[in-house]
Amino acid sequence: MENLREGDDRSAVVHLAPTVDTAKATLALLAPYIVRTPSVTLEQRATGGAFAKVVLKLELLQRTGTFKIRGALANMLNVPKGTERVTAVSAGNHAVAVACAASELGMQAKVVLFASANPARRALVREYGAEIELADDGHSAFMLAQRLVREEGRLMVHPFEGPVIAAATGGLALELLEDAPGLEAVVVAIGGGGLAAGIASIAKAIEPSCEVIGVEPVGACAMHQSLAAGRTLDGITNSSIADSLSSPMTEDYSFRMCRDYLDDVALVSDDDMCRAIYLLFKHARIAVEPAGAAAFAALIGPLRERLAGKKVGVIVCGACMDAASYWDWLERGRAVA
Amino acid sequence: MENLREGDDRSAVVHLAPTVDTAKATLALLAPYIVRTPSVTLEQRATGGAFAKVVLKLELLQRTGTFKIRGALANMLNVPKGTERVTAVSAGNHAVAVACAASELGMQAKVVLFASANPARRALVREYGAEIELADDGHSAFMLAQRLVREEGRLMVHPFEGPVIAAATGGLALELLEDAPGLEAVVVAIGGGGLAAGIASIAKAIEPSCEVIGVEPVGACAMHQSLAAGRTLDGITNSSIADSLSSPMTEDYSFRMCRDYLDDVALVSDDDMCRAIYLLFKHARIAVEPAGAAAFAALIGPLRERLAGKKVGVIVCGACMDAASYWDWLERGRAVA
Repeated sequence: MENLREGDDRSAVVHLAPTVDTAKATLALLAPYIVRTPSVTLEQRATGGAFAKVVLKLELLQRTGTFKIRGALANMLNVPKGTERVTAVSAGNHAVAVACAASELGMQAKVVLFASANPARRALVREYGAEIELADDGHSAFMLAQRLVREEGRLMVHPFEGPVIAAATGGLALELLEDAPGLEAVVVAIGGGGLAAGIASIAKAIEPSCEVIGVEPVGACAMHQSLAAGRTLDGITNSSIADSLSSPMTEDYSFRMCRDYLDDVALVSDDDMCRAIYLLFKHARIAVEPAGAAAFAALIGPLRERLAGKKVGVIVCGACMDAASYWDWLERGRAVA
Repeated sequence: MENLREGDDRSAVVHLAPTVDTAKATLALLAPYIVRTPSVTLEQRATGGAFAKVVLKLELLQRTGTFKIRGALANMLNVPKGTERVTAVSAGNHAVAVACAASELGMQAKVVLFASANPARRALVREYGAEIELADDGHSAFMLAQRLVREEGRLMVHPFEGPVIAAATGGLALELLEDAPGLEAVVVAIGGGGLAAGIASIAKAIEPSCEVIGVEPVGACAMHQSLAAGRTLDGITNSSIADSLSSPMTEDYSFRMCRDYLDDVALVSDDDMCRAIYLLFKHARIAVEPAGAAAFAALIGPLRERLAGKKVGVIVCGACMDAASYWDWLERGRAVA
């Protein structure tokens, strides 16, 4: 119950930011299972020399293609002894991560996917040996997963909430700042906020003057709306090509972490993300989904003036998609670039 | 004139393999200008567990998108004092590299491109501030460049030949084996052979038992033909989607290096390369051109049985292309995958 600050309106909520030591210990715990993803400095011409330096943290080279494996593994390494069966609700990438983690840890996963989930992700969940149940929307997906918990004794692996996930995603900030010390700003996408929570708290612990700015799609900005409302929200309807960032709700822990550790939240349009997908293809030869391009989209869009001349880190948080979807985004991005 | 061996048929030719020390010194010379590109281990499911380990050397994250910048810079840092103007003949990527190196070193470049050069490469050459002359074929391109040497006093920067380039490309092997010691085989594409020369000689100097296998397209296999003939060849007609590997000739130094240091040369079809492009998109989230996919294509194709169960390094040597071409290859690869 440390770190509760004056004015906190929910006294039952634990607001524990991960420490650098916790993030390091978690990273060491995950090391046997994950990739130490690299960072690369983007050539100046890619951004017209607008920034002193742009360092891309290439987390799309992570196992399963996204950072989600870090949080899923950290939670699943922390389960009660004897836990053999897990479940999760996901637009896709968290399900892939849970399926991969389960196969690594000898557990059996049955995940609930939205029927709209990208076919590449569905295929990947099956490749990792997990079962799939489909649901039409967030509410029915959650009900279905709850039933799996009750009837099959499965442990629910949350996609973004809690200090264990923040300690795990904080490892990304450790790696980035090891590769590129002295960053003046870090830009990171927000889905539920688990990634932003870890990045912001650890980056600021290491470089207190480093700004950390969250990014959400205009059509999927649960955290932006929650911060404006001053409280967590539920039942949010989203409309964005970035399905991986389309959370229907915010939760207490990640809400507080984003509120206390992010300097700001920037919003990007679908066109912004497509443009970033195209430019990352052109200048960095990486193939990303809209969520993975969101932070870069914000950097070259709404944050361009604010971060001009600075040394900036950009979290390219992942990519997991089919070729046809990628082509649609790339084409759209080329048209607006 | 060291290292000339009994039976050498061209006594005037110097055959000097770079030493590890030379490659290290060259790498240190280039370090201020280039990216120390990372390596990643591919997930087992990407190759169906056929190999003990597959490490991708992500040289497509290099400045300009390809390894070519290493050799161009090394040569241009070695020019006679006062050299201010350079030229080169290229299908595109070498021209981009020379243009970038010239802009870094304060030189002026005018390069001769094949008219068929990918539009993305032409645009990039101009972005780096170089002038372009177009030629219809290899012969007229070479004549034109020779005229630029005579009439404008330009220094010709060769795309692949000689010990300076081999020492520079050998740096890639130093980096790969630093990231992944104990590799049992390395697979590398051959265009003119400058990359293969450096990789093979340095990899074997560090890990004498490491096999190094070159890869050429079936439709652009100048080195394969030359090795079969036992001598360098000229005027070869190529027909391959891998324009970056389509050299019309072989040259003495790189021919001898490939002959003496490569364990074998494997051939891949256009379909093989497209399949590899698709699988690298799917499993590694990288966007590569056919030349950059050739080594991986060989690994999962003709070399699959030979290298089964081994720890293999694959040089992903580069990517520089427009989106439409990429989509064509990706689609074709998805169809045959």
